[in-house]
Amino acid sequence: MDPAAKKTVLRHIGYGMYAITAAHGGERGVFTANWLSQVSFEPPLVVVSVELDSATLPLIRASGMFAICPFADDQRQLAADLGRPKARAGDKYAAFDLATIETEQGVPVLADTLGFVICQTRAELPAGDSVVVLAEVIGAAVLNEGEPLTMRAAGFRHAG
Amino acid sequence: MDPAAKKTVLRHIGYGMYAITAAHGGERGVFTANWLSQVSFEPPLVVVSVELDSATLPLIRASGMFAICPFADDQRQLAADLGRPKARAGDKYAAFDLATIETEQGVPVLADTLGFVICQTRAELPAGDSVVVLAEVIGAAVLNEGEPLTMRAAGFRHAG
Repeated sequence: MDPAAKKTVLRHIGYGMYAITAAHGGERGVFTANWLSQVSFEPPLVVVSVELDSATLPLIRASGMFAICPFADDQRQLAADLGRPKARAGDKYAAFDLATIETEQGVPVLADTLGFVICQTRAELPAGDSVVVLAEVIGAAVLNEGEPLTMRAAGFRHAG
Repeated sequence: MDPAAKKTVLRHIGYGMYAITAAHGGERGVFTANWLSQVSFEPPLVVVSVELDSATLPLIRASGMFAICPFADDQRQLAADLGRPKARAGDKYAAFDLATIETEQGVPVLADTLGFVICQTRAELPAGDSVVVLAEVIGAAVLNEGEPLTMRAAGFRHAG
């Protein structure tokens, strides 16, 4: 396989940018994701790829829940900030003074993003350096007007 | 759950547009997909959601292989054409006079797209009206210069 061609073609795949949030036992996690997709209309299902060393993954697994909050196109810096690992950034909710909303399902969401869907995990599939989490959308709200941030517009390249 | 909010937020998820191709036993299939994502760097893995009634799904399962060919931004009409079900469009390779390349892995790819990755299936996960296929990228080539087509630019809305 030609590694340069693999990288070029995989970087043609289009992505948005999202905050993934989860909480369990008083601990909250948040990270920036781009590797996610809807995968079914009925029922509404999504998959998200989560790195195995993610500090939020144990919270998703323990609670069986997470939220997807699409960043608005003016939240490039926030997307970059929340992409930093917790080991370096510490509690990102405090470090970046995140405005949050507590949902009825107990998942914190970011008040300044376009909105959120609450997802209940259904299955996991091991995937190399990551795990693919399949989840059903069980709640949703629109929070702000705006256009979503894309990887391309942000100039980020987490693919290839 | 608020169905309108669910639809609005899920439509904030960003997607590109791709031809998925596969062949087995002298039969060829192709369809337009947007629900796909890379999910691992090492090894390079992708997931693609395939509708259960897809005529190409049996070819992917029988051969264990498929290709992802990202459409260029001037291929909106081709993306729409290849999104029609085989039951109505017939043999889409013939109906739309598709220029193809036979890869060494035996998977036909579309010569006029930006390029392709050849994917070998690794696992399946049932997902409502679709199946999530996890696959490893084992081959790749760049075919044409250009920018990739996005769902947003095409004005299509296969999400929500």
